[in-house]
Amino acid sequence: MTDSLVFTHTTLAARVHFGSGLAARHVAAEVEGLGARRVMLITTKSRAAPAGIARDLPVALSWTDVVQHVPVAKAEEARRAAAEADIDLIVAVGGGSTTGLAKAVALTSGIPIVAVPTTYAGSEATDVWGLTDEAGKTTGSDPRVLPVAIVYDAALTVSLPVPLSVASGLNAIAHCVDSLWAPRADPINAGLATEGIRALASGLRSIHADPLSTEGRQNALLGTYLAAVAFASAGSGLHHKVCHVLGGAFGLPHAETHATVLPYVTAFNTPSAPDAERRLADAFGADTGLDGLGALRLDIDAPVALRDYGLAEADVPRAAELILPAVPPSNPRPVTRGDLERLLEAAWAGTPPETL
Amino acid sequence: MTDSLVFTHTTLAARVHFGSGLAARHVAAEVEGLGARRVMLITTKSRAAPAGIARDLPVALSWTDVVQHVPVAKAEEARRAAAEADIDLIVAVGGGSTTGLAKAVALTSGIPIVAVPTTYAGSEATDVWGLTDEAGKTTGSDPRVLPVAIVYDAALTVSLPVPLSVASGLNAIAHCVDSLWAPRADPINAGLATEGIRALASGLRSIHADPLSTEGRQNALLGTYLAAVAFASAGSGLHHKVCHVLGGAFGLPHAETHATVLPYVTAFNTPSAPDAERRLADAFGADTGLDGLGALRLDIDAPVALRDYGLAEADVPRAAELILPAVPPSNPRPVTRGDLERLLEAAWAGTPPETL
Repeated sequence: MTDSLVFTHTTLAARVHFGSGLAARHVAAEVEGLGARRVMLITTKSRAAPAGIARDLPVALSWTDVVQHVPVAKAEEARRAAAEADIDLIVAVGGGSTTGLAKAVALTSGIPIVAVPTTYAGSEATDVWGLTDEAGKTTGSDPRVLPVAIVYDAALTVSLPVPLSVASGLNAIAHCVDSLWAPRADPINAGLATEGIRALASGLRSIHADPLSTEGRQNALLGTYLAAVAFASAGSGLHHKVCHVLGGAFGLPHAETHATVLPYVTAFNTPSAPDAERRLADAFGADTGLDGLGALRLDIDAPVALRDYGLAEADVPRAAELILPAVPPSNPRPVTRGDLERLLEAAWAGTPPETL
Repeated sequence: MTDSLVFTHTTLAARVHFGSGLAARHVAAEVEGLGARRVMLITTKSRAAPAGIARDLPVALSWTDVVQHVPVAKAEEARRAAAEADIDLIVAVGGGSTTGLAKAVALTSGIPIVAVPTTYAGSEATDVWGLTDEAGKTTGSDPRVLPVAIVYDAALTVSLPVPLSVASGLNAIAHCVDSLWAPRADPINAGLATEGIRALASGLRSIHADPLSTEGRQNALLGTYLAAVAFASAGSGLHHKVCHVLGGAFGLPHAETHATVLPYVTAFNTPSAPDAERRLADAFGADTGLDGLGALRLDIDAPVALRDYGLAEADVPRAAELILPAVPPSNPRPVTRGDLERLLEAAWAGTPPETL
């Protein structure tokens, strides 16, 4: 830290319940505490009525039409249905898309949300919403979309397959790493991010070794939450700008893209970010941040190359061109178009990030 | 972490500004953002008009009648004056007593507070209020007393004498340590507390070496904030129950008492709290938590014996008797009256805590 420690940090209010096998009880307590009488339950079909959550709730509307990236038309349908059913609370059980649809309804109606996450996406801990139409994705932040309560239940996540758990968990680690050099990076975010990495690294190793282990799932959820809080406060850094373009303009899958790109951005930035590097090495328990991330990725069979997820080598120059204007001025190392092409080429091929 | 990770964590909303020499600018921005037109400025006489904070504010009432522990009669006077002056915002510049008086006014009026702390007391980050009358101290928590914004300015704290800085900073470290085994201890609080200890230990060493160093003061303020957030969420553990009795029934000074008692509670509890012990050793950068705390205390000339602060040896049995019923059931090690007598006897004499 230096004499120039100047920042403004905003902490969002939150009520977070943790307990494996306790989702139904924690949700019921929230519904009662909030005095809700007409609940809209949003889940994907595969997760309908999970863990008995719906059983004792005053469910006036059950909604399973959940689509990735929250298309505007789908949001409008859900909003109309919520209004017609006179809904006073949304309970959203699922991953980022489910939480995203709940937020779309809350954005225009102000109906509060209780979120029950089943992946490591982290959207439940932020006030950020996103909607897509033909023109692309629109995002924004609004206090109305921040869930009033979050219910984390490791038992709901043991069915998440290991490869998806690994990709989703590395996406959460990317929230932590990027928040160390994002536009609103500050020591409070850095502290949360460091703790998040510890919990996620430990949790992902446990999940890989024993997918049904509740302990690993709990640590992953704890890390997910800390990662999301840090990221929501710090904003998007270089890593998220790269992945945003790869997802938006080239249709690459969200979690796998983040999982694959992270070591390359880490290799590029850490030589110019000594405080972040010290934190990463410490959190991963390794000599360097990159070593620690690499060891974790080996242990859990992380995705290694963007060419496995739909990027063509010929797309690299155009991707670099699209990313360049979005690079945050806060990035610790200046970024040229040539840098981005080298970074993307390496991530496309899956070559060792140390060579960047 | 085990399969039994069950907890509910409440995060209070906060807006925190950091910047050495920027208090006046940050306060002015808050006053404008909140649309305040009639400010009540609360300071102690020694801190009146500090750093030009008052200069550009619409101050309708300037209040300097600040007394330790917030006597009810003093609170009533301030409340009446605030009502008569039609105050719409309180700006409190000072330590725990100043913030405490602001909270007393906010508690009954709902007038928002912008807090500008000048010590490491941490009250600015909590929703806890306290008032005293002949019968003793009453405390409670209320969302109305939580400041809407906190302005940390290291330049305002360089005049805090080193012994006071050390005692106040060790009081903040006690918030961190106690939150590891307090009734609502959880991994989120533990993460904040660990970061808080790192910042405070580094900050206090810098302040002791160079009291005018802004860097040390900044780290101490950052640690103070993290400590207060963790402590407000986790509640009072054994350490605070001990100090509450020593302050309330025997009139010992607040910060010095906390600074002196902390190693003895740490020595007593850590053998039964392996996760807390691991965190403390890590945060202090030592083989054990107690070693690390001891090394820091030596480096900064910490207070060593309660007999130097007004406790009589003959008071020990009665103090132990008063503390025993207040010991939290969450304490990691069962506590007997004999244990408390041994702990207090050692803290009274200043014998090495390792011998406990």
